Order: sequence, then C-alpha cells, then structure tokens
Amino acid sequence: MNEKNLPLTSERLQTLAENIPTPFYLYDEKAIVENARDFNRLFSWAPGFRNYYAVKACPNPSILSILKKEGFGSDCSSLPEILLSEASGITGENIMFTSNNTPPEEFAAAYKAGAIINLDDITHIDTMIEALGEVPSLICFRYNPGPQRTGNAIIGNPIEAKYGLTSEQIVDAYRIMKKKGSKRFGLHTMVASNELDGTYIVETARMLFELCVKIQEEAGVRLEFIDMGGGIGIPYKPEQSAMDLEAVSEGVHELYKQIIVPAGLDPLNIVFECGRVITGPYGYLVSRVRHVTSKYKEYVGIDASMSDLMRPALYGAYHHITVLGKEEHKSDHVYDVTGSLCENNDKFAIDRALPEIEQGDLLVIHDVGAHGHAMGFNYNAKLRPAEYLLHPDGSAVMIRRAQTYDDYVATLRFDGAEVVL
Amino acid sequence: MNEKNLPLTSERLQTLAENIPTPFYLYDEKAIVENARDFNRLFSWAPGFRNYYAVKACPNPSILSILKKEGFGSDCSSLPEILLSEASGITGENIMFTSNNTPPEEFAAAYKAGAIINLDDITHIDTMIEALGEVPSLICFRYNPGPQRTGNAIIGNPIEAKYGLTSEQIVDAYRIMKKKGSKRFGLHTMVASNELDGTYIVETARMLFELCVKIQEEAGVRLEFIDMGGGIGIPYKPEQSAMDLEAVSEGVHELYKQIIVPAGLDPLNIVFECGRVITGPYGYLVSRVRHVTSKYKEYVGIDASMSDLMRPALYGAYHHITVLGKEEHKSDHVYDVTGSLCENNDKFAIDRALPEIEQGDLLVIHDVGAHGHAMGFNYNAKLRPAEYLLHPDGSAVMIRRAQTYDDYVATLRFDGAEVVL
Repeated sequence: MNEKNLPLTSERLQTLAENIPTPFYLYDEKAIVENARDFNRLFSWAPGFRNYYAVKACPNPSILSILKKEGFGSDCSSLPEILLSEASGITGENIMFTSNNTPPEEFAAAYKAGAIINLDDITHIDTMIEALGEVPSLICFRYNPGPQRTGNAIIGNPIEAKYGLTSEQIVDAYRIMKKKGSKRFGLHTMVASNELDGTYIVETARMLFELCVKIQEEAGVRLEFIDMGGGIGIPYKPEQSAMDLEAVSEGVHELYKQIIVPAGLDPLNIVFECGRVITGPYGYLVSRVRHVTSKYKEYVGIDASMSDLMRPALYGAYHHITVLGKEEHKSDHVYDVTGSLCENNDKFAIDRALPEIEQGDLLVIHDVGAHGHAMGFNYNAKLRPAEYLLHPDGSAVMIRRAQTYDDYVATLRFDGAEVVL
Repeated sequence: MNEKNLPLTSERLQTLAENIPTPFYLYDEKAIVENARDFNRLFSWAPGFRNYYAVKACPNPSILSILKKEGFGSDCSSLPEILLSEASGITGENIMFTSNNTPPEEFAAAYKAGAIINLDDITHIDTMIEALGEVPSLICFRYNPGPQRTGNAIIGNPIEAKYGLTSEQIVDAYRIMKKKGSKRFGLHTMVASNELDGTYIVETARMLFELCVKIQEEAGVRLEFIDMGGGIGIPYKPEQSAMDLEAVSEGVHELYKQIIVPAGLDPLNIVFECGRVITGPYGYLVSRVRHVTSKYKEYVGIDASMSDLMRPALYGAYHHITVLGKEEHKSDHVYDVTGSLCENNDKFAIDRALPEIEQGDLLVIHDVGAHGHAMGFNYNAKLRPAEYLLHPDGSAVMIRRAQTYDDYVATLRFDGAEVVL
C-alpha cells in the first residue's frame, strides 16, 4: 500500500488551476529533495556513493539543478542531454554518458565535457578512441549478462537486448583497455526496469561484485566503481508497495562484505543511475474535465491527451487519478478517462472506479515525475504542456512554457525553395 | 505481392545522402500526385467525390499543397491542423473538422474558418452551438455502430471506442439539429484502420447507405454527403497486396444503385478522409549504418531511432528495408536493426533477413509517408530529422529542417523565475 498524496491542499491546487491554463505538470521540490536525501542516506555506507539521475526521465534543468545540490550526477544518453546537464551545473565526471549505437561526434563531445564514457560495445573501442583522439584514462563498460539473468518483465530478456557486452566479451574489454593505457575502470549493468522486488537489485549487486573479482583475477584490472544502473520501480497502483530500499541497501552491503572486502577490492565505489524512483512520485499532471458523456460506455474527456503522457497508451500503464474536491466521495462510477487524440488508445484510464465527475472538475494524474512530459509528442498537432515547480515555500514557478503554434511550425519550410539535388 | 520501389536510382539516392545529413525523410511528389489522381479517377462515378486528406498522417504544408492541387480537402483533428491546412491553401468547406473531446474554442475557430464540423457526441450539441454563437447551417455527425460492427484488428472493437454517436443516438441528433435550424447534413464513420480487405470498406458503405435511408425516414433529414472515413491500409510487407480499390469502388457503386437511388436520395455526395493510402507508400526514411556488431544476436545500429519513426516500436509494425547498392545481394544474414534510444524496443526490425551489411551502408526504410515523421518525439533528447520533397523533375527541396538543440530547449525557462502562485 502507498498513499497517493497531493503536493498542495486540494483547495490551493484548484486555485492554481484557475490561474494557469490546464493541462500542466507540477513538480514538488520539497518532496524531491527529501527523497534524494533519503536515497543518499540509505547508501551512506557505500564508498563513493552517487546517483547519476537519468536525464531522460525528466529533462528539465530546473529539476536537474535541484538534484545537483543534493550531490547527484546525471546519466546521459545523448549529446543534448549532456548540454542540459551542463546548463544545470552538472559537469565533468558527474556526467555518466551511457549511450548505445553512439555516433563518433557524441563520444568526442562527451569526452570533451569530461564525462565518464560508459561503453556499450566491445567493437566500438577503436571508433571511440579515434573519436576521442586519445585513449581515455577512465572507461566504463556496460555488461549484458544474457542467459545468466532473466531480466524483469518490463525490460525484457537480456539475451534479446541490444545493450552491453556479453559474458564472453566483458573481461577481454578490460584487458584491451588496460593494454591501451586506461588507468581507471568502471562496470555497469541495467537488467531491470520499474522493478518493485528489491531482491532483483541485490542479485544484480551480487552479479557485479562477482564479476569485479573475475575481472581482477583474469584481466588484472581493479575496478574503481560499479554502476548498478536504474530500474528501481515505483508503486503506481495504491495497492502496491514501494521497494524496500533499506533492505536493498543492507543486502548489497552484506554482499559487499562477503565478496568485495575479502577479495581485497575495498573500497569499490557504488553508484546508480536511477530516474523514476527519484522524481516519479513527485510529478503531477493537472487536467480539467471538458466533457462527461455516455456512449456504449461512460467517458470522461479531459484536456490532457496521450501527447502529454504516453505511458497509459504506450504500455497500458496505470496512473492513479484524484478528482480534486471529491477526495472523500465514494468511487461509485466507472469511466474511461480519455484525451482528444484521433487514436483510440488515447485513454488515461479504462473502466476506472471514480467519484461522479462533472464538467469542469480537475483531475490530478499521479506519478508522472519521470517519463511523463519527456515522452510526449506532437501527433495530431497537439501542443505540449507547461511544467511548473512548486517550491518548499509554497510558491510555484514556470520551468517550461507551453508550446505555441509557432513552436510547432518552427522547422517547417513553407516555401520549400532550397534545391539540394 | 507488391514491389518495394525506390523513388530514385540507388546511385542517385546515395549521392543525395552524401550531400545532406542522415537520417532524413524523402517524399516522392510524382508518385503522390499519380496516386491522388488514381484515387479520384476510381471514384469519378460518385457524386461530389472528394478525399479529405488526414493531416495527422503527414502534417507538412508542402505535401498538403500538392494534394490541394489534386482537389483534395483536409481532415483535421485540432486547431493547429486547421492552421496548417490554411497555410497550404485548403480553406472553408474543404476542411473537415473531425475532432473528439473538443474544446469550445476549437469549435469556434473551425467554424470561423468555414470548416465542416463533424460532431463526435450528441451531448456536445449545446456546447458547440454556444461556442459558435449560432446554429451551423451545415453539420455532420460521427456514427459509431457499436455491437453492429466488429471493427478491424487495428482500430479495435467499436463498442470500446471513445468515438461517435451510438445507434440509439444518431437519428435523434439529426432530428435535434433540423429542429434547431440546420439545413445541410453529413454522416461520418470510421471503423477500420490500416485495413487491406476491401469488403470491409464496402460493408461500411452499406451500413452508411442504410443509415441514410433510416435518417430520411425517421428524422426527415436528407443527407448531403457521407464521409466513409479512412482506414484503407497499405501493404507494408512485400508479400501483402494492396486493397483492390477498383473492386471497392464498384462494390460501393453497386450498393449506391441498390439502396440510395431507389430511396430517392441520389445525388448523395461520397467523401473519404484517407491519409495512409494516399502518401504512405511514397515516403522513405534514409538512414546510415553506424555500427554492425555481434552480442547475443547480430545488430545493425543505424543513425535513425524510434524517435524518428515510432511504428515498429509502438505497434510492432513491419517496415521494409532496402540496403542501397545491395539490392541484388542475397538476404542471407539475419539482423536486429536498432536505433540508439535507451529503450530496448527501439528496433526497426527484429530477426530480419538482409544482405550482409557494413558500417556506412545506407538503409531505406519504406512506407513512412504516413504516420511516420508525424509520430516522432524528443525522448532521450533526440532531435527530429529533416524532410525533403523529391520533385518530378528530379530536384529535391527541404520542406522541414532538422531540429537543433535550440529548438529542443525553446520552451525551457532556465531561470524559473516567474511566480504564479
């Protein structure tokens, strides 16, 4: 069980929604900061602990700046994400560049920025060195355990995954880079996504710790850090429980003492690249009801659509919905809550029990602080919504304005006059 | 069977791709024009025949302008799509406004533009009239047959669909609008998507024709037009065959003579709102191979990603791939063709038999002229690609430039200083 709280009283949220156009995203700074501190505190035993926040989850510099103050780095998968990080004050080795199928110019840019390069493929070593113009002193490799792990339901089977180096390749990769002159080494993996079972994370630590020992033994390379990846889920449904991170931390610590310390590999820095668990529960999409209507089913049409939040349409994902001012009403009506795209899967909820809803009601869609706004699109020429940040003092600021038609057509060439062939 | 042709010789395409950055979209104007003319010719028997091109399929004014010259109108689902139409010279009743869960201000704007309003819901009548400030002389309703039709695999079961008026509501709707003073009437439905079986379209005509008779008998309303919707598919796989549109036209014509003429309802204008079948096969995504690599499977990493074309990741859709310069080579290698998003479903093809591929090869991804560029997003901070139009004289022009980082951050407020609460 987890409680689906609001970041403000229902009344103040309704006042806010009268002053700014709906739909909009609202992020709760106080909750994000507290959560980030909790995360750091839980792993305070771990050498060099750091979370590199996955920028893709919420690529807004105002959010990244908040996390930077809490000691977070950033996990980037493209050059624009590196630029966003730098715009947020996250620089150098506080940036982890975890890309795949990487263009040479992005390797070069990441290196120039001083980021840690987390290499996805053993065959990319030469391309990377050529792009960098030199052998990097620090290098990390992404490990894909293939048939040795089953992967969780969401990320799929590692053996089918495009990422990482295989068990056959991983030790060789360190051997090669050591020979070429690299001095500092990291090891990364990512085998789960949105997982709530903490044992999965502990087992990932075991896998990486054992691999550290193997790499030391077989390649003579002493690792400086392991990057446990992300994949820690959040309880989207009220009846789900959050991952027991305290138990995870204890489990990883125990394995550290069992495997790393006896092998003489202590200190080994431990880092994560979590996005969802850091900001996910602290983002809210506020949308107003346009129409309540009856067809073959009962529908609530809201002014947000899947262009604002793709997860329900894309993954069939559950997002909890609160009807403002009706928190205490009985959920004795069943609705499909829809957007206005010309796509039948543009539904935020299907057969959802909710209080009786009227035109003009405000709905709060919960748990959209990660992979929410970031995954929106302009299909059906829908314009993207604004983002607001709620400060701890109760004030709110716009951290991204809503798109306009001019933004939407900015890249069009109406004259079409440029001959290229 | 259908042939997967290129819009230029393989050599000229390769030259083009040396002169402009990959990935890019290329549309074949000549083929689009010929196809549009064929479509008009096939239905030349039909009174007032017109296709309202679904703007959402390829929302580029350069494409819309080409279709306008062939007598096409536009089917719009949002205000920005109406603005795009007008920017392309498509105005007034040549615009069909087929929206759902519509905001009042979009009703008003559509009406001011002179568009035909295709109303999705009987309970929206008063909202619409209030927004318009008067009763529209011309009104169309969207019909949802519910349990009377099964829907095709892609659009899903009509009874689960958020669209349209039910069988119980549809006659009443005309009665109401006639009483309020409307003089001209249309009837619309959309019960299939990407369908290749022509009998489905013919049966839709039968359903609408019979409904026309019923509406005449029960509401005393003589319809001016029926809008058959879209839903005509294209053969994405080489082994599939295109819908036999000639047979569809004949089938619809036969039913017209059997049902509409004897009922004294001739002439009844017949229109469509097809997008995919008009431009789909004549758009190409050209992408260069960055890496060929071996993990637990064989991978070809290209410089396009699912942010450029969502259909394979979103729907598991097949898109044919040609390796330029290797058209005659045997397809004796099996690859996953991947993009570079940090999403494991970022694959254009899984276990696809292709000729042996090398770094630097150019791949052409076929049939992306509809719901291709339009459905892209900026996830992972990926920037959207450019679009080019290939003229009949063999010249090519840029009709949309590639996004830049500045575009990507245009709506961000780096200072976050605006207090709103």
